[in-house]
Amino acid sequence: MSTRESLAAEREQAVTDEVLASFDNAEPRLREVMQSLVRHLHAFARETRLSEREWEAGIAFLTRAGRLTDDRRQEFILLSDVLGLSMLTVAINQPAEPGATEATVFGPFFHDEAPEIALGGDIARGAAGMPCYVSGQVRGTGGEPIAGARIDVWEADEDGFYDVQYDDHRSAGRAWLRTGPDGEYRFWSVLPAPYPIPHDGPVGDLLKAAGRGPMRPAHLHFMVTAPGYRRLITHIFLAGDPHLRDDAVFGVKDSLIVDATTHAGGLAPDGTEPAAPWASIAFDLVLAPAPARP
Amino acid sequence: MSTRESLAAEREQAVTDEVLASFDNAEPRLREVMQSLVRHLHAFARETRLSEREWEAGIAFLTRAGRLTDDRRQEFILLSDVLGLSMLTVAINQPAEPGATEATVFGPFFHDEAPEIALGGDIARGAAGMPCYVSGQVRGTGGEPIAGARIDVWEADEDGFYDVQYDDHRSAGRAWLRTGPDGEYRFWSVLPAPYPIPHDGPVGDLLKAAGRGPMRPAHLHFMVTAPGYRRLITHIFLAGDPHLRDDAVFGVKDSLIVDATTHAGGLAPDGTEPAAPWASIAFDLVLAPAPARP
Ligand SMILES: [Cu+2]
Ligand SMILES: [Fe+3]
Ligand SMILES: [Fe+3]
Repeated sequence: MSTRESLAAEREQAVTDEVLASFDNAEPRLREVMQSLVRHLHAFARETRLSEREWEAGIAFLTRAGRLTDDRRQEFILLSDVLGLSMLTVAINQPAEPGATEATVFGPFFHDEAPEIALGGDIARGAAGMPCYVSGQVRGTGGEPIAGARIDVWEADEDGFYDVQYDDHRSAGRAWLRTGPDGEYRFWSVLPAPYPIPHDGPVGDLLKAAGRGPMRPAHLHFMVTAPGYRRLITHIFLAGDPHLRDDAVFGVKDSLIVDATTHAGGLAPDGTEPAAPWASIAFDLVLAPAPARP
Repeated sequence: MSTRESLAAEREQAVTDEVLASFDNAEPRLREVMQSLVRHLHAFARETRLSEREWEAGIAFLTRAGRLTDDRRQEFILLSDVLGLSMLTVAINQPAEPGATEATVFGPFFHDEAPEIALGGDIARGAAGMPCYVSGQVRGTGGEPIAGARIDVWEADEDGFYDVQYDDHRSAGRAWLRTGPDGEYRFWSVLPAPYPIPHDGPVGDLLKAAGRGPMRPAHLHFMVTAPGYRRLITHIFLAGDPHLRDDAVFGVKDSLIVDATTHAGGLAPDGTEPAAPWASIAFDLVLAPAPARP
C-alpha cells in the first residue's frame, strides 16, 4: 500500500471507529443493532468508493420516498421489498422447521376488518374473476389436524387490484373462516391475476434503471393462526404464471406454487353446479409449533 | 451445523442470491452500487437476526423522517450525519494528499447568496458575538501562494444560530472574499458558539436512546476554490470547546482545531483599536492539486 492509500484507509477507519464508539453506551440490543448497521453501511460506502454525487442521489431518493408516503402508499416498505430485505426478514424469523409450510411477505393489502364466512363460503364477495374452489387441511408438523384454526385470505381480482385500491370503499376478495373438526378448510374465491407493485415513484425508477419489472405473479394471501402453533403468513402462487421467476419482491418459494385445475362445467366438490367455467386448487397448510416460552 | 440451522442458512442465502441476480442487467456502476448495498444490508439483517418488530421500527423511523423533511429541514441528511456516513463520504472523496488541509462535512447551513466583502472586511455583518479577527494564507501543497482564491465563510452566532434559522430573513455571519497577491486572507467575524443539531425528530430520539448528545463544537465553515486546485470544504474548531470529543456528526479532525487568542483591547493586526475585548485566530489553508482529467 502506498503512503497515500494508507493515509486514506486510516482516515476512513478513524471515522468508522469513532461512530462505533458513540453507540457504546446504548442498551445492549440497540448497541448491537446500531453498531452492526454502521459497520455494514460504512463497508458499503468504502467498497463502492461512494461519490458525493451518489450520496446526494441517495438523500434525494429517500426524500422523494418520504414525500410520497402516506396512509395509502408506503414507499419505504416497497424499497425494502425490492431490495429483498422484507423477504430476508421473513426468512430470518420463520421457524426452520422441516415440513412446515414456508412463509412469505405479508404485503401492504391486508386489513383487519374482513368478514367471517362459513366453511365452504365465498371470499370473492363480488370480486371479478373465474370462480375458484380452494380446499385443503391445516395440520401440525406432527401430522395432527388442527380444528378451529383461523384462516384469513385476501387476493387481487382478475384485473390485478385489491378492493382497497378502488376508490369506492368496496370490500371484496377477502374474508376469514375456521377449519372444521378434521382441520379441513374449503372456500370459493376467484383466480387472482398478476399485478404490478406501485411504480410511479423512486422505487419504480430504481426498478426501471436496473432493467427490472414491477410485476408480482398471481397469488392468494393466507394468514393462519391457531393456539399452540406459530402464526403462518404466506401465499400460494399459480403454476405457469409468467412472473414466477421475476417476482419484484422475491416472495416465490417453489413449495408454494400450486396447480389450478380448470373445469368447463360439471359438479363442484361441494355439490354445486357452476354455470360458468371454474377452477380448483388443493393446498394443505402445515403449522410449526409455537416457540417455547423462556 | 444442525439440520435446522443449515435449512435456515440456505433459505436466507437463497433470498440474497436472488436479489443480487436481479441487478445483473443494470449498467455497470448501478449494478456495482446496488449489489454492494444488498450484500451489506442483508449481512446486517442476518448478523443481528433482525426481528419483524425491529424491521417495522426501521420503516416507522424512515416514515417519520420523511414526514419531517422539507425545504428547511432535512432529516435524512441528519441521519447520515449521526451515523457518520456523511463524514465517511467526505473522507472517501477527499484527496489523500499529505500536507493538504483536511476536509469535513458541508452541513446544511451554507447558502449561495452571501455578499462579497473586501480583504480585511467583516463577515459578521451584525451577528452577535465577540469580534474575532481571522487570518492566514491559502497555498498549494507545493508551498506556492494562491492569489485570488475564493473563500466562502459561514458561522453560527454566539447563541448558536445561523442567520437562516431566524425567522426575519436576516443575512449575517456569512460572506465571501478573495485572497491577496501573496495568497493572504484576513477578515473580521465573531467567535461562534456550540450548537445542537435539530433533535426534535426521529434522529434526536435515536441520539437520546443511544445516550448521545446533539451538540456540535463551535466552528467556522470554509469553502475554498481556486482554478487548478481541488475545492476544499472544511471547518476550523475552537480549542477548549467542551464538545470536541463528542461532535454529533463526527466532523472534528485534530488538525482543524485552532487556538483563539483573546485580547482585552489594544491594537488589532489591521491597525484598528477595538473598543471591546476581541479574539484572533491564525489558520493557513492548503489546497491539493485538481485531479488530472482522464
Ligand atoms: Cu457488510
Ligand atoms: Fe398481494
Ligand atoms: Fe455548522
